[in-house]
Amino acid sequence: MLKFNEDEIKKEVKEVLDLREAIEKCVTKICNDGYENIFIMGIGGTYAVAEEIMAYMKGHTKINLYIENAADLIAEGNTKLGKKSIVIISSDTGRTQEMIDAVKLCKNQASTIIGFVQDKKSPLADLCDSLFAGPGSAYLKILLIMLDFMKENNEFELYDSFYNQMEYLPKGLADVQKSVDSKAEDFAKKHGNDQMHYIIGGGSLKGAAYSYAMCYMEEMLWMRTKSVSAADFFHGTLEIIDRDSNVTLFKGEDGAREQEERVEKFLPRICENITVFDTKEYQMKGIDQKFRDLLTPLIMSAIYARINVHLEKVRRHPMEIRRYYHRLDY
Amino acid sequence: MLKFNEDEIKKEVKEVLDLREAIEKCVTKICNDGYENIFIMGIGGTYAVAEEIMAYMKGHTKINLYIENAADLIAEGNTKLGKKSIVIISSDTGRTQEMIDAVKLCKNQASTIIGFVQDKKSPLADLCDSLFAGPGSAYLKILLIMLDFMKENNEFELYDSFYNQMEYLPKGLADVQKSVDSKAEDFAKKHGNDQMHYIIGGGSLKGAAYSYAMCYMEEMLWMRTKSVSAADFFHGTLEIIDRDSNVTLFKGEDGAREQEERVEKFLPRICENITVFDTKEYQMKGIDQKFRDLLTPLIMSAIYARINVHLEKVRRHPMEIRRYYHRLDY
Repeated sequence: MLKFNEDEIKKEVKEVLDLREAIEKCVTKICNDGYENIFIMGIGGTYAVAEEIMAYMKGHTKINLYIENAADLIAEGNTKLGKKSIVIISSDTGRTQEMIDAVKLCKNQASTIIGFVQDKKSPLADLCDSLFAGPGSAYLKILLIMLDFMKENNEFELYDSFYNQMEYLPKGLADVQKSVDSKAEDFAKKHGNDQMHYIIGGGSLKGAAYSYAMCYMEEMLWMRTKSVSAADFFHGTLEIIDRDSNVTLFKGEDGAREQEERVEKFLPRICENITVFDTKEYQMKGIDQKFRDLLTPLIMSAIYARINVHLEKVRRHPMEIRRYYHRLDY
Repeated sequence: MLKFNEDEIKKEVKEVLDLREAIEKCVTKICNDGYENIFIMGIGGTYAVAEEIMAYMKGHTKINLYIENAADLIAEGNTKLGKKSIVIISSDTGRTQEMIDAVKLCKNQASTIIGFVQDKKSPLADLCDSLFAGPGSAYLKILLIMLDFMKENNEFELYDSFYNQMEYLPKGLADVQKSVDSKAEDFAKKHGNDQMHYIIGGGSLKGAAYSYAMCYMEEMLWMRTKSVSAADFFHGTLEIIDRDSNVTLFKGEDGAREQEERVEKFLPRICENITVFDTKEYQMKGIDQKFRDLLTPLIMSAIYARINVHLEKVRRHPMEIRRYYHRLDY
C-alpha cells in the first residue's frame, strides 16, 4: 500500500490513549477545585474538531460546554469566560498566532488552559496550565478528556468499558485504512481532476466535511470545494446540484445518520456522480457498536487519510506544498 | 431603479419596529415567570440569522443563550432544553418540516415557543405560545426581542435611545439600497456569469456570507459559491485563491471588522478580482455609529438585495424558479 506505515499509525493512536492517567489526574484536580464551564477553542481545522465534539456532547452532557473560534473570541469576546472556566486547546505547531492571542486573553480572565500541543517548546505550550505534548488525533485527545469530565459528572458509566475496548483502536483504525484503500484509489483516479467537489456530512461529520474540504483539499491539494452540512443541504445547496456535479457524502454512525440517509436517498434522482464514504462499512474488531458514534470522526479521518494519499499521487501534488502559508506574512 | 419599491421597503421595516409593544409585553411576562435559557432555532437561512445574532450576543449578554439547527436538534438533542427554556423561531411559510418537528420536540419538553411566522395560518404558527405574524427581516425581529431580554437583564441601557433612532431605519435602509445600486449593477455585469464565487465575512457577517451564498446565489440564482468566515480564511481556503479567483468580501462595523480588514489587506497580493462591500460606506441619517454594529447584517442585506436584482437580470434567471424545492419530495 502506498505510503502506509501500519506501525506508525498504531503507535500514534496508542500514545494518545496512554495519556489516560495524566488526563485523569488533571481532570480530578479540576473537579475537586470546582469549575463553572468548559470551552473548546480552535481555529480552522481545530475549530472543526470542536464542532465534531460538540455535536455529540450537547445531547449527552449537562456540563456548560462552549466552543469558540480563537479569532472570534478576540473579536467578539464571550461573557461566559472567566476564572472558573477551563479552556481546552489543541495545536500541532503551537505557533498559530490567533490561538496565542486568544489564549492570552483567556489567561487575562484567569481561566485554566489545558493544552494538547504537539511541540512542547512552543509559545502555546508555554501558556498552558496543563500540557499534554506529543502527536496524534486532536479529536481523540479532546474526546478522552471530555469523557473523563462526563464520568466525573456521572454521565458516562461506560468509561472503563470504553477504555477496555480502546485497546483495539490502534489496530482498528489501521484496518479501516487497509479496507478503504482500493475505494479511495478509485475515487482519486475518477475525481482527482474534477473542477469542484461538494462534500456533505451531518452531525459530527459536519465538522469532518468542513475540515476535509478546507484543510486537506483546499489547503494541501489545491482543489476547489464546498462543504455543506446534511442539515442545511436541502435549504439551498441542492439547487446547484445537477447530473454531473461531483458530490461526496460522509456517512457516520452518530445521531445524524438519518440526515445523511435522507441526502443519500434523494441525490440519485438528480445526480449520477456521487460517492458515499460510510464508516459503517469498516469493521473495527473488539469495539462495540455502542461506541461507534463517539468514534465516527476518527473512522472518517482514517478513510480520508487514504483518499489524501491517492489524490496526492493522481494530482502529482505533494501535500507539503503551500503557496502562501509560511511564505507570506498576513 | 430596477424593481425598487421604496414605500414597500420602508413599510416592511416599520411594521417590524411596530412590534415593539407586543414584544415587550411578551418579554415582561416571561421575565416575571422566570426562565433558564433562550434558544434561537432555525435551519438554512434562519440558522444563519441565529449565527448573526449570536456573534453579537455572546460578548454582550450573560443570558444563557444557545443557537440550534432544527435538524440537528432532532438528530442530537440538547441537554439544556427544558421547561424553563424559551425557544425563538422565525419562518416565512411556517411550513418547513424540520422546524415543525423540532418545535414539537421543544413542546414535548414543555419549552415556551416564541414565533415570528409570516403566515399566521400555518402549522408552525399554530405551535407558537406567542406569535408575531407579518413580513420583514428575521434578523431585525429577533434582534428586537433579544435587546428587550437584555434590557430586562440590565444589560442594554441604550434601549430607549435605540428605539428613538430606529425611527430613521426605514428610510436609512432604503437609502442604502439607492446608494449601492450602481455598484451592485457593476458587480452583476462583471461577475454574473463567473463560474465560482468566494464570499467572505466575519463576525455577524459570517452568517450573512453563508446565507447570501447558499440561499440567494445557490438556491435562487443557481450560481456556484463557497462562503468562508474571515476567521478561518487564513486556515485553508486562501491556498486556493489565485489571480483570477472571484472573491467578494463583506465588511461590517461589528467586532470582526479587523478580521475583514486583514483579509482585505492581504488579498490584493494574490488576487486581482476582488469586490468589497463595506457597510460603512452607506450612511443612515439619524442613526449613531454606536448602533451600527447591531445593524451590520441589516445593512448588508440591503446591499445584497440590490446585487440580487441585477444578477437576476444579467443571468436572465427569475429568482422565483426552483429546480427541486416544492417540485420533488425529499
